[in-house]
This record gives sequence, C-alpha cells and structure tokens, in this order.
Amino acid sequence: MMDVHRSIWTQTNNITSNLNILWAMHEVCPQAHLIKLGTMGEYGTPGLDIPEGFFEVEFRGRRDRLPFPRQPGSFYHLSKVHDSHNTAFACKVFRLRATDVMQGVVFGTHIAEMNVDPRLRSRLDFDQCFGTTINRFCCQAIIHHPLTIYGAGGQRRGYLPLRDVMQCLHLILQNPPADGEYRVINQFDECYSIRELAQLVQDVSRELGYATCQTHYENPRIEAESHHYRPDREQLLQLGYRPHHDVKSEIRIMLNDLAQHAERIAAKRDLLIPDIRWDGSRRKSAALPAVKQHSQ
Amino acid sequence: MMDVHRSIWTQTNNITSNLNILWAMHEVCPQAHLIKLGTMGEYGTPGLDIPEGFFEVEFRGRRDRLPFPRQPGSFYHLSKVHDSHNTAFACKVFRLRATDVMQGVVFGTHIAEMNVDPRLRSRLDFDQCFGTTINRFCCQAIIHHPLTIYGAGGQRRGYLPLRDVMQCLHLILQNPPADGEYRVINQFDECYSIRELAQLVQDVSRELGYATCQTHYENPRIEAESHHYRPDREQLLQLGYRPHHDVKSEIRIMLNDLAQHAERIAAKRDLLIPDIRWDGSRRKSAALPAVKQHSQ
Repeated sequence: MMDVHRSIWTQTNNITSNLNILWAMHEVCPQAHLIKLGTMGEYGTPGLDIPEGFFEVEFRGRRDRLPFPRQPGSFYHLSKVHDSHNTAFACKVFRLRATDVMQGVVFGTHIAEMNVDPRLRSRLDFDQCFGTTINRFCCQAIIHHPLTIYGAGGQRRGYLPLRDVMQCLHLILQNPPADGEYRVINQFDECYSIRELAQLVQDVSRELGYATCQTHYENPRIEAESHHYRPDREQLLQLGYRPHHDVKSEIRIMLNDLAQHAERIAAKRDLLIPDIRWDGSRRKSAALPAVKQHSQ
Repeated sequence: MMDVHRSIWTQTNNITSNLNILWAMHEVCPQAHLIKLGTMGEYGTPGLDIPEGFFEVEFRGRRDRLPFPRQPGSFYHLSKVHDSHNTAFACKVFRLRATDVMQGVVFGTHIAEMNVDPRLRSRLDFDQCFGTTINRFCCQAIIHHPLTIYGAGGQRRGYLPLRDVMQCLHLILQNPPADGEYRVINQFDECYSIRELAQLVQDVSRELGYATCQTHYENPRIEAESHHYRPDREQLLQLGYRPHHDVKSEIRIMLNDLAQHAERIAAKRDLLIPDIRWDGSRRKSAALPAVKQHSQ
C-alpha cells in the first residue's frame, strides 16, 4: 500500500513465483501436492458466512457450486488472490493437486521442539508492513507503550498459535487432495476482535507485572471496523486437528521470550506506529496522535 | 497457454500496466473515468446466469451483494481477472471511478467512418493466439479451407460487431459512473455457439460464391463444449445502446474486405490450425487431423 513500485513488486513477485511452481509441477512432477499458503485476508469481510473456498448458491432458479468471491483489503492480499485463481485454473487444466491454505493470523515465538536452542526461535516482525497485531501488542506491552487499537477495534479475524499451524500443515501433508483437485482449507483456531486481543494481552502482561494500557489510534487502513465475521473451519477438524485454545498461555510464552529483547524493541519503538495510509492521502512521521487513551 | 514464459509475461505485463494507471490516476487525476477493456471470458461458463459483475445471493439465511465469481479459461483471461480485482479495490480505497467492460468477442473489418480510406481498416488476426472464431472462419472461407469447429462446437459466447463496440464505448464515455464507483458492464449483442457461427459464415460465403464446408477439429482447449450460457446485458440498453443485430451483413462486409487479401491469407494458411494445447501435453505440427468433415 506504500506506492506504485511496491504494489507492482509485491504482485509480480508473488505471481511469477507461483506460476513458475505451477508450470514446473506440470512439466516435472504432476503428481506432487502443492501446499500454498494463502491468507484468510483473501476473503475480506463480506456480509455472509465465509465457507472454505466454495459455496453452493441459488440464483434465478438455478444452483451451482461457485468459488466464494474474494474481496481482500490490500494490494498484498490481492496478490494472494491472484495466486489462488491461477492455482485453481492450473489444477483444472494441468490436473495438478493443490491445497490452498487460507491461513489466519499466526502468533507465537516458539514451539516445544525449539526449546532446546533459542537460536531456533522464529523471526518476529513488529513493524507496520510485516508485524501482525498480537506481535505489536506484545512488543508494546514489553516496553510500556500503550497498545494501539486502530479505529474502533471491532475488526474480527481468525487467529492461531504457531504450534497449531505446525499441527495443521502436518495433517494437510499427510492427507493430500485427489488428482486434479484444488482444495481450499480455512486454517485458524478462534476469531477475535482487535479490542478482545488488546484485552487479552493487557490481562496477561499485567499478570506478569507490566503496567499495560490501551489507546485508540486513527485507523491507517480502509476497512470495516465493525462487521459480520463467521468463517468455516470444518475440514481441518475432520482431518484430526485438535486446537489448543489456550491463547493466554501462548501470549505468556511470547511476552517471556520478548522480555529478553526489550532493549532492542525499545530502540526501534518508532516502528510501532504506522506512517503508511491506505488511501495514500498522507505520510505522517512516526508520532503517536492518540484519539483517546484509557486503561481497563 | 504456450509455456511458463508467456504465462508470466502476459500476466505481469497486464497487471503492471493496469497498476501503473490506477496509481497515476490516484496521484494525478482522481476524477478521471477509467474505461478498462476486460472480457466476457473472465466469467467462464458457470452453471448460473451471468450478471453484470455483481449478484445478490442468500447464503445460510443472510443476503449480500457480492462480486460474481470469475472462472476464466486461460492464463490470459486470468490476467484480465487480476486487473478487475485490482481495479475494484483501487476504486474503493482511492475513490476512483471505473467502468470495467466485459467485452464479448468483437468482429468486423471496418465501420462506416473508415470507408473513405482502406488504410484505416482495423487490424485482423487469424492466428491461434489473437485470432477469434469469426475471423478464422472468414479467412478459411476465403481460401476454400474447411471451417474448423473445435470439438462439439456447442461453446456459446457473446459477440458484437465492431460498429456496435464503437457505439457502446461512446455511450460509456458519455455516462461515467459516480465517484468511487466500480461499474461492470457486459458488452455484447447476441450469443452464438461455434456451430451456429460456422453455419452463418458458410451461408453468407456460399451466397458470395465460395464452396465452403465445415469440419470438426480436436479441441486444443480444455473447456465445456455444451453448457448453460445466459449473460445479462441490461446496462448498455439503459444507456441507449441500439444493437444492429444484422450479423450476416457484417460477415458479408468482412468477407468482401478479406477477399482482397486472399493471397496473403493463403500464404499463411498454417496459422489457421492450432498447435498449442491447453493441457500442454503435446505440440503438434500444423496439420489438419480432422475428426470428421461434412458439408451442411
């Protein structure tokens, strides 16, 4: 969303890489199973429940199973939508098999298998481009910065902890789709609003002794701040997914891991406030013009 | 559909150009009206009637107006779908106005305004990549080549003569959408199957003295050869479009124009037979392995 150059780079980079893979599979290994990581963000926030890729509808007395229309909210998310369309088509004409994973927002700093060595811990971004909400909130809590809720904070999305992602992708690997099948799987544990997440992070961080508060910040994006959101998540359960549900303990692990890096986060605190605006109307310097600040 | 390089070039070329235009409008002329030429091929051939870009559906007791899902039939058509999605999004976040024209297959060699000078006549392609069905049939008729129907020939599409295209685009120019509106208009006159078109070209060419016959040729594409097809075309009629409907006279004009170039067409007759296969399984040399040949 920064400018024309980044928009074009993001889309051509994703599309080119994905087309290269599709054609390579077609020419070299047509029996392989492609697991493509898309995002729940491809769907946007329609006024209907969100099925897993396809839905059956009636229109003027006829019924058909159609791809569920995608209405994503950024040029980045659009690049994933383009890849989904290309992949669905390639499955049809090249008879490839693919699982397109509509992944919810992933959070977490390590899984049990990484405990032996802190160098194995996953990368964690907290800037406006790559950092997601829970990452940002946890980093803010660690350095006593208010948790910045964009707009009203009623934006709901699906989330899942890193250890659940590993479990899901493993199940998908073990259960490939049929020849020529383009399968779409929604992958998340539970849905939360931004306000609920801020409250969760505040609760856990206070338990750990941080004096955390929340603030509402002018929304840099153009998105619905209060909307219907009820996506399906049936296929993974059928494949054997057992959600951990324990989001608070996951956040506790994150805060403890991040506490060891509080100085590095504090040194980059400017990154916690966005200066990119979706409508391109202004590029503010990184300051904190809080709409209102309150402690709950 | 030729190979990975052409797929990537086609998609990155269209997407890059279109994103450049959207960002340029946003930064320089946000009040301008973008008229983007898409194609009816973006919709593919779903089992439902095809509305103009959007449809209202009920799903699990809730109703919403959604983009009608696109299921195009080639990497080229997918590039237009990607552009449509990017344009719809840009209208939303940048408050641009755009008309996305889902254009049916255009045919014709000149309009009345070009009569004064044959150098004004439009370019005519009859190869497998850029040549459309009526062009190919007319060129085949002129050089006494059988009209090659791909597969069963029940593939239906919307068509419109060149003079109607000029009328429609003029009406769209004169009637721009509102600020921030992404408008989709289906632009065609009538729907024909490939078999019906072959019959029309055969009838007209025989009237002109050509001994034209038809042949069924193994379909190089992967597509439904018999399917539901009932797209809407309401908005252009509301804007004042008056279709000419006289497809036979348009084909007569084409045949007469093309007759002057019979030798050039005959010299390139290899172009009339495709060697690109949608499934990429084989690349045949340009020969005519007719499935069956008959004269009606």
